[in-house]
Amino acid sequence: MLETVEQKKTKRSLAAEELNTMREELIDLANAAKAAKIPVIITIDGWSAAGKGSQIAKLIKYMDPRFYNVESIRTPNSVEKRKPWLHRYWQRLPKQGEFLILDGSWYRDTVNALMFGEIDKDEYKRRIKDINTFERQLADDGYLIIKFFLHISEKEQKKRLDKLAESEITRWRVTETDLENNRNYEKFFKRYDKTLTRTNTEFAPWHIVSANDKTTAQFTIMMTVTNAIKGACAAKEKGEKFIERPEFPTAGYQPESFRLVKTKKLADVDMDKQLTDEEYGKKLEKYQNRLFELQNICYQKKIPVIVAYEGWDAGGKGGNIKRVASALDPRGYEVKPIAAPEPSELARHYLWRFWNRLENDGHFTIFDRTWYGRVMVEPIEKITPQWRADMAYQEINEFEEQLTEWGAVICKFWINIDKDEQYRRFKERENTPSKQWKITDEDWRNREKWDEYERAVDRMVELTSTEFAPWTIVEGNDKKYARVKALKTICKMIEERLEKLR
Amino acid sequence: MLETVEQKKTKRSLAAEELNTMREELIDLANAAKAAKIPVIITIDGWSAAGKGSQIAKLIKYMDPRFYNVESIRTPNSVEKRKPWLHRYWQRLPKQGEFLILDGSWYRDTVNALMFGEIDKDEYKRRIKDINTFERQLADDGYLIIKFFLHISEKEQKKRLDKLAESEITRWRVTETDLENNRNYEKFFKRYDKTLTRTNTEFAPWHIVSANDKTTAQFTIMMTVTNAIKGACAAKEKGEKFIERPEFPTAGYQPESFRLVKTKKLADVDMDKQLTDEEYGKKLEKYQNRLFELQNICYQKKIPVIVAYEGWDAGGKGGNIKRVASALDPRGYEVKPIAAPEPSELARHYLWRFWNRLENDGHFTIFDRTWYGRVMVEPIEKITPQWRADMAYQEINEFEEQLTEWGAVICKFWINIDKDEQYRRFKERENTPSKQWKITDEDWRNREKWDEYERAVDRMVELTSTEFAPWTIVEGNDKKYARVKALKTICKMIEERLEKLR
Repeated sequence: MLETVEQKKTKRSLAAEELNTMREELIDLANAAKAAKIPVIITIDGWSAAGKGSQIAKLIKYMDPRFYNVESIRTPNSVEKRKPWLHRYWQRLPKQGEFLILDGSWYRDTVNALMFGEIDKDEYKRRIKDINTFERQLADDGYLIIKFFLHISEKEQKKRLDKLAESEITRWRVTETDLENNRNYEKFFKRYDKTLTRTNTEFAPWHIVSANDKTTAQFTIMMTVTNAIKGACAAKEKGEKFIERPEFPTAGYQPESFRLVKTKKLADVDMDKQLTDEEYGKKLEKYQNRLFELQNICYQKKIPVIVAYEGWDAGGKGGNIKRVASALDPRGYEVKPIAAPEPSELARHYLWRFWNRLENDGHFTIFDRTWYGRVMVEPIEKITPQWRADMAYQEINEFEEQLTEWGAVICKFWINIDKDEQYRRFKERENTPSKQWKITDEDWRNREKWDEYERAVDRMVELTSTEFAPWTIVEGNDKKYARVKALKTICKMIEERLEKLR
Repeated sequence: MLETVEQKKTKRSLAAEELNTMREELIDLANAAKAAKIPVIITIDGWSAAGKGSQIAKLIKYMDPRFYNVESIRTPNSVEKRKPWLHRYWQRLPKQGEFLILDGSWYRDTVNALMFGEIDKDEYKRRIKDINTFERQLADDGYLIIKFFLHISEKEQKKRLDKLAESEITRWRVTETDLENNRNYEKFFKRYDKTLTRTNTEFAPWHIVSANDKTTAQFTIMMTVTNAIKGACAAKEKGEKFIERPEFPTAGYQPESFRLVKTKKLADVDMDKQLTDEEYGKKLEKYQNRLFELQNICYQKKIPVIVAYEGWDAGGKGGNIKRVASALDPRGYEVKPIAAPEPSELARHYLWRFWNRLENDGHFTIFDRTWYGRVMVEPIEKITPQWRADMAYQEINEFEEQLTEWGAVICKFWINIDKDEQYRRFKERENTPSKQWKITDEDWRNREKWDEYERAVDRMVELTSTEFAPWTIVEGNDKKYARVKALKTICKMIEERLEKLR
């Protein structure tokens, strides 16, 4: 794509007035985006010394600083390195109606990592796939993504870097990375070009800015931003999806399709499985001890372990989680109970709050209810329309694949009980003073929708049992059996992972 | 305090049964604390190899893992180093009804920093003061703080470290810090002793655990925790403050009293100040340019700048903030608009959400409305009782002093307009379509309470104008004058700080 870009020069006097008009328009448009609750992400990448910082300063000069956030993306720090690579971008997602403006983004991150030998080509390719997935997920959720690449010639870059290095005040701004960027201009050119080509999609097309001339660059950026926001607001008003006309041929992106493993329907699960007290005592001890050993190995090898619990009300999730937790060194895990989202969570992509809850690598993150609420309670309780919830099967598979790429072992449990057993437990809770807080009218109401939930669970298990993150249905009528099965499954899955690493 | 502690030995057979009873009691007590919405912080400090980790594991073994969080506190990482030293503890505050259990805490942090030469004695003393303030603020807010120091003899410690070092599996756990802790047992003994003595307060008394014998230690910890929670729940039920009977004489803690600078009442502010367009243009440019230069210096010297905006509705805060922001490199500041707190914020100390919003050192954090809501809108709108809000003057002065110790320059602005000017602006907003979103019924309702607000503002300015963080009342009837004054004040305060650093 880059070779087709010509460096242009705009007459300053001509541009000034138009720029002013556009700036004023931008203020109104930012308000319109706020009113329409459109979250906007603007990424500015490009050559070293292409003027990213000063272009951003010009872009936001007249915008209301309460509603944008500018972040400068550098090499990940020690904390960021212990999370999935896209984690730091997920963390920074703007709320609906707000702007995130990135000076350098996942693109610079990826290209530099490859060029400086921190990742190999396979990892680079995975990242390109992750990026397309990430941007599509955001676009599907109503995010407007405007991507700029500031392009300057080798000569121009050299001139600018020399000039910065000349003055004592600006010398510190020229880094070894910048010099390398210029010394290997040809190699970077090819890599940038490939990267742009592969990530030029309909939902997040590239805007390549000819930036030898700063006024031209400013003009292009301002015009692109105002047009995109205008388009997005207009589309939203009509209830349509906003699709920009891309300047370059798009990459022909297709969402990944996942190979699924065969699963059982809930109706076919054998609910009679149980353990005697004696068997339970022995097996509990055995697998708890084994899990503790495995935790130590995971800690040393920095393997993250994600344990996700779903199940019927009164299925025994709490007690099950407790047996897993009490096997572990408490400094190495955290249990995340998932309740209804808070306003700041509702104002962002629904996966945001789960990304935000990931513990460091080497640690266990145990979710008590999970992102699967999206395809169960949300459509059934009409919190999310069915068509929107249906998109989550794909999104969740992608999310879990990214966790797997990070190195995570993912154990997903559906704790299953039958309808009679639930009735018995509800009644027991009602009749036991110390357990009454555990039973509410809502539990009874949910119970009335048993069949609807069962269909949703069957569908969820079927569509999200990927090879890397299959569901385990835990026969839960006997709590002892269920606890041992969960512990055993976690051990087995970690052992399999360790086996593969050998 | 330490020299009075005798090492005891408990017969295991005797303890086992009682421990079991206490463990079961603890489950109920944890539920009671949850129901009573008492947040609990348990800190476990002590000698290296005193068994902190295994004591924690035993303590929580039967607790519900959804409602506690165990954190291991190590040397601050690169991100934590760029925040105030207590920031990482504030960040981890548990919600009401939840438990935070710390393996090592602000105590180990402080003693190690001194012993390993990272801080000097003055800084150590400041930290002791910060700790007492921190714990008092939490206790005042209903937090139950249970502090343990696990005490073992030099000989016992040597024995344990040698044993760990013997086995290949456990050798990695013995660090240079641990060895130093044993080699300089005497010196550490004295420092621990001083630290414990100075922080043994009524609201957060020390429990020194004789830990040569593990069963004795477990017994003491379990008994102390159950008693404290019982006491706190009983006190809360009666609406009383929980005060444990301390085992050792307390340090005689008194909250700091701050020297205040003289301030004006709002009624005495000259509201006629204004600038011509020409003066405005010149001065705006002058101070914006100067501020940009100063930002660069602050960035290089890692000086954090906190700008806090309060003012009447329609006072012009937004436009004022914009002029400050647009002077700055956008990568070096963030504007934090403060709205009503979310559930997760309401469930913690009210200063939590402000601690959480602090940017790194070297950056500007600009607050659009602030922690001062606590002494204005909250009591006036009956969100917080007056007596509770009144405690905030002290708490806020302490908070700002801690920010100052971190190195921050703090600029606090009250943007003042008179009642007629507000009326004019409200009407203008109502009559200008593009501004109508800015005016709500609530604004008119607040206006009816003008006198009450004015008294609250006068009191706030009087009681929180400390030498390190004085208020600046900005005459705001003329927006141009107000913007220049804010810019000029920020520049001046930064310059004064730089002057002092020379």
